[in-house]
Amino acid sequence: MAAASTAVDSASQQLQFAPFCSALEAGFWHQLTQRKLNEYRLDESPKSIKGYYYNGDPVGLPTRLTLEFSAFDVKGPTPARCCPAVGTLYNTNTFEAFKSCDKKALLEAAASEIWEAIKSEKSLEDPSVLCRFILLTFADLKKYRFFYWFCFPALCFSEGIRILQPPISLEERFSPTQIEALQGSYDELCQRSGTTAVPYFLVKYTEDTVQLAPLHSWRDFFKEQRKVTMGVYDPCTLSQHPGWPLRNLLILVACNLEYIPVLCFRDRTLQGTRSIQHSLLLQVQLPDWNWGLPKSVGWEKNQKGAMGPRMVNLSECMDPKRLAESSVDLNLKLMRWRLVPSLDLDKVVSTKCLLLGAGTLGCNVARTLMGWGVRHITFVDNAKISYSNPVRQPLYEFEDCLGGGKSKALAAVERLQKIFPGVKAEGHTLSIPMPGHPVNFSEATMAQARQDVEKLEALISTHDVVFLLMDTRESRWLPTVIAASQRKLIINAALGFDTFVVMRHGLKRPKGMESAASSPSSAEPSFPGSSLFSNIPGHRLGCYFCNDVVAPGDSTRDRTLDQQCTVSRPGLAMIAGALAVELMVSVLQHSEGGYAIASSSDDRMNEPPTSLGLVPHQIRGFLSRFDNVLPASLAFDKCTACSPIVLDHYEKDGFRFLSKVFNSSHSFLEDLTGLTLLHQETQAAEYPWNISVFSDNSWRLVYSFIEALA
Amino acid sequence: MAAASTAVDSASQQLQFAPFCSALEAGFWHQLTQRKLNEYRLDESPKSIKGYYYNGDPVGLPTRLTLEFSAFDVKGPTPARCCPAVGTLYNTNTFEAFKSCDKKALLEAAASEIWEAIKSEKSLEDPSVLCRFILLTFADLKKYRFFYWFCFPALCFSEGIRILQPPISLEERFSPTQIEALQGSYDELCQRSGTTAVPYFLVKYTEDTVQLAPLHSWRDFFKEQRKVTMGVYDPCTLSQHPGWPLRNLLILVACNLEYIPVLCFRDRTLQGTRSIQHSLLLQVQLPDWNWGLPKSVGWEKNQKGAMGPRMVNLSECMDPKRLAESSVDLNLKLMRWRLVPSLDLDKVVSTKCLLLGAGTLGCNVARTLMGWGVRHITFVDNAKISYSNPVRQPLYEFEDCLGGGKSKALAAVERLQKIFPGVKAEGHTLSIPMPGHPVNFSEATMAQARQDVEKLEALISTHDVVFLLMDTRESRWLPTVIAASQRKLIINAALGFDTFVVMRHGLKRPKGMESAASSPSSAEPSFPGSSLFSNIPGHRLGCYFCNDVVAPGDSTRDRTLDQQCTVSRPGLAMIAGALAVELMVSVLQHSEGGYAIASSSDDRMNEPPTSLGLVPHQIRGFLSRFDNVLPASLAFDKCTACSPIVLDHYEKDGFRFLSKVFNSSHSFLEDLTGLTLLHQETQAAEYPWNISVFSDNSWRLVYSFIEALA
Repeated sequence: MAAASTAVDSASQQLQFAPFCSALEAGFWHQLTQRKLNEYRLDESPKSIKGYYYNGDPVGLPTRLTLEFSAFDVKGPTPARCCPAVGTLYNTNTFEAFKSCDKKALLEAAASEIWEAIKSEKSLEDPSVLCRFILLTFADLKKYRFFYWFCFPALCFSEGIRILQPPISLEERFSPTQIEALQGSYDELCQRSGTTAVPYFLVKYTEDTVQLAPLHSWRDFFKEQRKVTMGVYDPCTLSQHPGWPLRNLLILVACNLEYIPVLCFRDRTLQGTRSIQHSLLLQVQLPDWNWGLPKSVGWEKNQKGAMGPRMVNLSECMDPKRLAESSVDLNLKLMRWRLVPSLDLDKVVSTKCLLLGAGTLGCNVARTLMGWGVRHITFVDNAKISYSNPVRQPLYEFEDCLGGGKSKALAAVERLQKIFPGVKAEGHTLSIPMPGHPVNFSEATMAQARQDVEKLEALISTHDVVFLLMDTRESRWLPTVIAASQRKLIINAALGFDTFVVMRHGLKRPKGMESAASSPSSAEPSFPGSSLFSNIPGHRLGCYFCNDVVAPGDSTRDRTLDQQCTVSRPGLAMIAGALAVELMVSVLQHSEGGYAIASSSDDRMNEPPTSLGLVPHQIRGFLSRFDNVLPASLAFDKCTACSPIVLDHYEKDGFRFLSKVFNSSHSFLEDLTGLTLLHQETQAAEYPWNISVFSDNSWRLVYSFIEALA
Repeated sequence: MAAASTAVDSASQQLQFAPFCSALEAGFWHQLTQRKLNEYRLDESPKSIKGYYYNGDPVGLPTRLTLEFSAFDVKGPTPARCCPAVGTLYNTNTFEAFKSCDKKALLEAAASEIWEAIKSEKSLEDPSVLCRFILLTFADLKKYRFFYWFCFPALCFSEGIRILQPPISLEERFSPTQIEALQGSYDELCQRSGTTAVPYFLVKYTEDTVQLAPLHSWRDFFKEQRKVTMGVYDPCTLSQHPGWPLRNLLILVACNLEYIPVLCFRDRTLQGTRSIQHSLLLQVQLPDWNWGLPKSVGWEKNQKGAMGPRMVNLSECMDPKRLAESSVDLNLKLMRWRLVPSLDLDKVVSTKCLLLGAGTLGCNVARTLMGWGVRHITFVDNAKISYSNPVRQPLYEFEDCLGGGKSKALAAVERLQKIFPGVKAEGHTLSIPMPGHPVNFSEATMAQARQDVEKLEALISTHDVVFLLMDTRESRWLPTVIAASQRKLIINAALGFDTFVVMRHGLKRPKGMESAASSPSSAEPSFPGSSLFSNIPGHRLGCYFCNDVVAPGDSTRDRTLDQQCTVSRPGLAMIAGALAVELMVSVLQHSEGGYAIASSSDDRMNEPPTSLGLVPHQIRGFLSRFDNVLPASLAFDKCTACSPIVLDHYEKDGFRFLSKVFNSSHSFLEDLTGLTLLHQETQAAEYPWNISVFSDNSWRLVYSFIEALA
């Protein structure tokens, strides 16, 4: 009230307007963040957004223009009894651009648009042009700080607007019947206009009647020569001042009239009863108008009352876990802005990964998956954490080793949750039955093995990609067979001392289509370990066992300590683990996924098949030479893991077949696949490749072969 | 006593011996672990070790043969009043070898050796051969479990030894004077023998005198035809039984005599008073002996009283932190067993590493250093942990982000200690002053910058290797200059989106020797970025800035979000971080260290210069092609960081020079080094290399150059 009496200075009797306060909800910033990351990226062009204002606030509240999460949906609904205000968002890429933006020019451009709409009488058809805004922003998405500056462009008369008499409230001037009639008429106008709030309207009244019309009825309405009152849906609650929406309306009026009564329509609900009594009535004298472009004002003052931008720091009020999630997304989405616009992140993020092995490789693979935003990570391991693990297995700490050591699978899950609470991680302490590791000691051990197999089958079926990250060769056999049967992509990583192999297993064609594929290929020779063929499609690529001409068996017995431990250069597992995930991601980006033709070292100079580059079959790395080679090899028709005869037996006989493999020496699988015969045939003859196989460290020896080719 | 009366069965009157109990102290196992790791490795050949036994135990204690940490020092001293026993250690590489070892053969071989010593009378000269042992072990160093089986080879008469009268104690037979004389004589014998305990001796006595002689005096001693008593230093405390050492002595005696009195010399201290009164006297009748190899016994029973090995699990009783330390060492030492016997681990482990940057790269570098056993790691970073960090920066967790985020440098230290309590980690929250980032706003900012420079200089001087792991180019300038001046090895790593560079900076010759080096080289052309030269020695290699023809400046201003964040494929930092450490380790293994000639891609087929392989200047990686190239380039005489003129100014003017660099635009350094002139000269001419420099992402563009060369 004090403010009002000062403002309506009886000497000057100048009309003053209560400016809008910008009210930006967190939801708006969240939406802006999302749009910036996913849609605008580096695009700085102006965007249409929509806010709204309400006119039923209790006394004391400032006049607010609210922007919430729905602001970006310009054609979307506006909350009931609110008027929409359409604005233009200028979101800059840099803080420097935000600061150096020419705000005067922005305002003048907007003002000029309003002026044109007034002159062309377009504003009569669409009065919303009278109530526009500009929002200039810079979103510092790393720190969740948003810098912004609002502008509500208002044309203004340099000499001001005179008030002919102090503003009075509706009830001072009108009878309750008239007020009631006005209220009814406004509701009717809204109904006709198909909205719940009409921002501007025309009023004619007698003692008994009140007649309201939309702005575009201007000419017809004035024809009758009766006195017309301009109606404005007024968000202001001050008793002596109208709100900002009236400003540009008066410019419109001034082009036609000198004097006009104004109804600042205010529509409160007081103690459960609707009340428009406190609406204001003004009599204003509009200045003589020369039809030139009026001056304009409108940039909002900041919290300190100075002309300047505001800043909101949402990091403090956001749920830290949500904050973590969006922060993690940020780095990923940034990739798409400039570097890899076609990157299909959803494909990566939604991939369910099963990690068999939570040791050196498993920990590094899990960490890289987290970096890629993969949410669904499941660990299988049967070991406990020992004292030597934490320095090489980056999910464990010293404390995890105490008291005999925590289960790796479970501790890994705990750690992932500590790193990123949004992860969906699971751990299973499970022993994977292995060829040459008999399980037929008793009924109980057989039952346990059967249960373990079933668990593994179920886990593989509910995941998209299976990572083989164990430290023995034979533990990879069962998941290789199951995943091959289920047509799941396998990514396999194995370490030597300073060499590694990271590979994707061949992905068999969907069931029922295998024969179509095998008939043309059956004419071609199929040798293990051959990399002489290029352009091998994914369904014809080999698995980890295809290069071996000996079946897996117990390799842990009778090994010296250096053979039992994974003795490798400490950097190796990080490199191999990272490459395993990067290989998976690249394969996922290929339209054919695991069926993609394998890239080879020779393809390095060619156009890559995915936005991320090559999709090799194998990456074989040699740390001593800081070198990688990319061999590709065909599936071997006598493979002890993925050959049709093995898969057939597994699919037909299930556990009965598997238990035979577990309980037998390796000759069982070699006999089954025909390897035994091959051995006999080639024993006398010179061996066609310089593979010195028949060792438990088969991978190491395959290298010497690859090296010879490289 | 009950046991004794049963044992000396009056019917059979057979003499029975109390066997040794093996007493293996933790120190012994610790030493075995060390020897196995550092010395024996895969060598399974028998080793001489030494135990001892004591004869002053109080009644009730079993007869122990003790092996402690000193067991491997066969020529070392034996504790006072203890007799040494030399044994043979058979430590197998595998548990299978331990189990399948032919224990009968081992025993028979040892027995036969004793028998030969008896027959040849070598045993008279060196009676210790009568008391030997065998120790068969398998050390499961991963789990700190030790399997072992002791054998105390004893020859035995198939018909046993008859006792002619029940054993009596010394005091039952001798007067106190005689006892005192015996004790004096024994001490004198010890003194003559230069020891504190003589295991076997000869005794002659009268009423007044006691005469003792060493075993080798046998013939002289018996000449007198007086009755001789065999003396044995007897560790047994049973009143009716002698201990094991007597057994083989009686075989020796039986070759010469049929009846003999035996003195089981026992030398206790009771309530502060020495007492030999309880020594035993036996009269034994030795069987008729046919001079054939006697039977032998001696394998120790296990705790269950059965013939079988024992197991000790030291993991439970060791200090967990010590356990963690030795476990970590284990994996490293295993490398030397078979794979890299010449690896100088101490050089790696003792290297003090300074990590400038504790972000994505810093975390991965620290983890790899821990894997290599590096103990001394210092972080410098001025940032706080933000929500997007933990999934990519493997030393941080969600909790570290709360409340504005912990300091990275300090949180990284905490995490290292949680991973491995034995680490000596330090963290410094420090801003590194940068060219083009003025510090001359006020006295205070200048003082702070001076302090920061001094801190950085002190840190670099107290470390051996400096890692540059920051996310801007210009922050690498100051440490490059300081480390070049201090002749410290710099390992530098920088990331692009899917490319990286890992390099060692050239290491300038020691001060005062630079000119000798530069005179021959000054004749050669020195171009930035050239890799056309091979065999570049370390002192002529370039630094990170040598490839650039523009000085570092403020690259963080006016950058869009994707330029501010390190947007890279998540696996990239793990690979680059791991390679940075592996490069350091390889360089440390080179006899010339940082002065080593740079290996290039072409050297991949040649004999590597170190046991770990190549020592390239740079590793430039291309993840999209899974490829690395190894360019080498010369130091650039106009380099803005490591050229003589920059180092001269730094060394002469110190902070005065540096502050000029911080406060000036990049033209200052370009003018100083002559780059400005070079620009002018080459501007019109065609640029000799296809480097599209002059960008804030200089490294990314250098790649395109390297790619063209590769």
